[in-house]
Amino acid sequence: MIPGFHGVRETLIQGHIKIQEVWMAEGKSSARAGDILRIARERNIPVRFKKNAELTQILPDVAHQGIIGFAGRFAYSDFERMIEFSLRNEDQALLIAADHITDEGNLGALIRTGAFFGANGLIFPKKRSARVSANVLKRSSGAYVYLPIARVVNMVRALDHLKRKGFWIIGTSSDSPASIYSFDWRRDLVLVFGSEQRGLSRSVRERCDMMVSIPSSGYLDSLNVGVAAGVVLSEIFRQKNLQGP
Amino acid sequence: MIPGFHGVRETLIQGHIKIQEVWMAEGKSSARAGDILRIARERNIPVRFKKNAELTQILPDVAHQGIIGFAGRFAYSDFERMIEFSLRNEDQALLIAADHITDEGNLGALIRTGAFFGANGLIFPKKRSARVSANVLKRSSGAYVYLPIARVVNMVRALDHLKRKGFWIIGTSSDSPASIYSFDWRRDLVLVFGSEQRGLSRSVRERCDMMVSIPSSGYLDSLNVGVAAGVVLSEIFRQKNLQGP
Repeated sequence: MIPGFHGVRETLIQGHIKIQEVWMAEGKSSARAGDILRIARERNIPVRFKKNAELTQILPDVAHQGIIGFAGRFAYSDFERMIEFSLRNEDQALLIAADHITDEGNLGALIRTGAFFGANGLIFPKKRSARVSANVLKRSSGAYVYLPIARVVNMVRALDHLKRKGFWIIGTSSDSPASIYSFDWRRDLVLVFGSEQRGLSRSVRERCDMMVSIPSSGYLDSLNVGVAAGVVLSEIFRQKNLQGP
Repeated sequence: MIPGFHGVRETLIQGHIKIQEVWMAEGKSSARAGDILRIARERNIPVRFKKNAELTQILPDVAHQGIIGFAGRFAYSDFERMIEFSLRNEDQALLIAADHITDEGNLGALIRTGAFFGANGLIFPKKRSARVSANVLKRSSGAYVYLPIARVVNMVRALDHLKRKGFWIIGTSSDSPASIYSFDWRRDLVLVFGSEQRGLSRSVRERCDMMVSIPSSGYLDSLNVGVAAGVVLSEIFRQKNLQGP
């Protein structure tokens, strides 16, 4: 289920996930509601008008804004194909690994930020991690249609595999002396972010070729993981497109 | 009320807001619960043990983690003093203006991100804006103790006033051709972020000396406001500390 105007609209337009049916709360007459109706009609997708309470009943904890799209199961990408595709790219490969991120809002923000900066994919482990739920889709503002997402059984083994394929494994941590501004990002790489509570696990940290930190100019030493990803991805973009470190 | 371990701990240690009393859910025996008990004892602040349900009753929509600190009212800073203090700073002044941001999570993220990058203050309008609620304090992960926050009656007049004081007013918008990487940030400035739905209002946009955008390398044209703030503040930090644009 895909809640919210932005997510439903992006999914309808982009078409990678096929929406079977749209539910809209009765009495919606805004421009964006009209927009969804028009796009759904063009694509022969039925729109059913329901009481707002019915929408809330099926998605009780999500701000659905009176609109829900019903799609097939979320289709995770195949890890091997993600790797191949990212290496075939004319630009250097850029993957994101989320090491046991449990907060759905953070996972959604990571997807949106990764898609914005043109990452080639996101991987996270099957266990002890938030998964792509309706709430995550909503928090990603529809961005999941632009970023392949794969689940791996074992993160450490996945990183070992990526290393053999020629990727640099770069971890982020507030206690590393190497700054993101001095590291040269122009290479095929996997950017690893740790969980909100514990950061990177020891075994993942041991796999990293390099640990980098975002220098703080204040008294805090950590950023929200979605914000941290934005900061690092922005620096990667800057170096690749404008100048080196 | 300050919910959550991190917020209560930071507030107890930092002391800008005086906590009168701490409520802790019965049966907490984690290291961080012990930590709070120790700090509260050192500062002669009473800790009361309550049923978890009692905590949820007073803060029903907040993930309080079984701990709530009771403080005096949140003390907003005085706008004039914030300006004076930021200009007296040896570094160039850096303020953030949130133009009608209504999502509490976004306001909390903005506070945390601003504090991390050493901004001198955050202003937002009294009306049609999220305010510093318990949920915002929680989402800021205790960062609000490091960042002065002032409310203004009228954002447009506040920006006019800052302009007269010598600040550059810089707006962010996805449709501006000027990139954050080419703008020279080394000056006294106010960074203005617009609402999640509408961006900057027309009258605020007219006050901006410059509009800049974060270039996207993907198909999306917008970032979450907290992430966008992190990206811009990181670029400001980089230019000031390492090299120009």
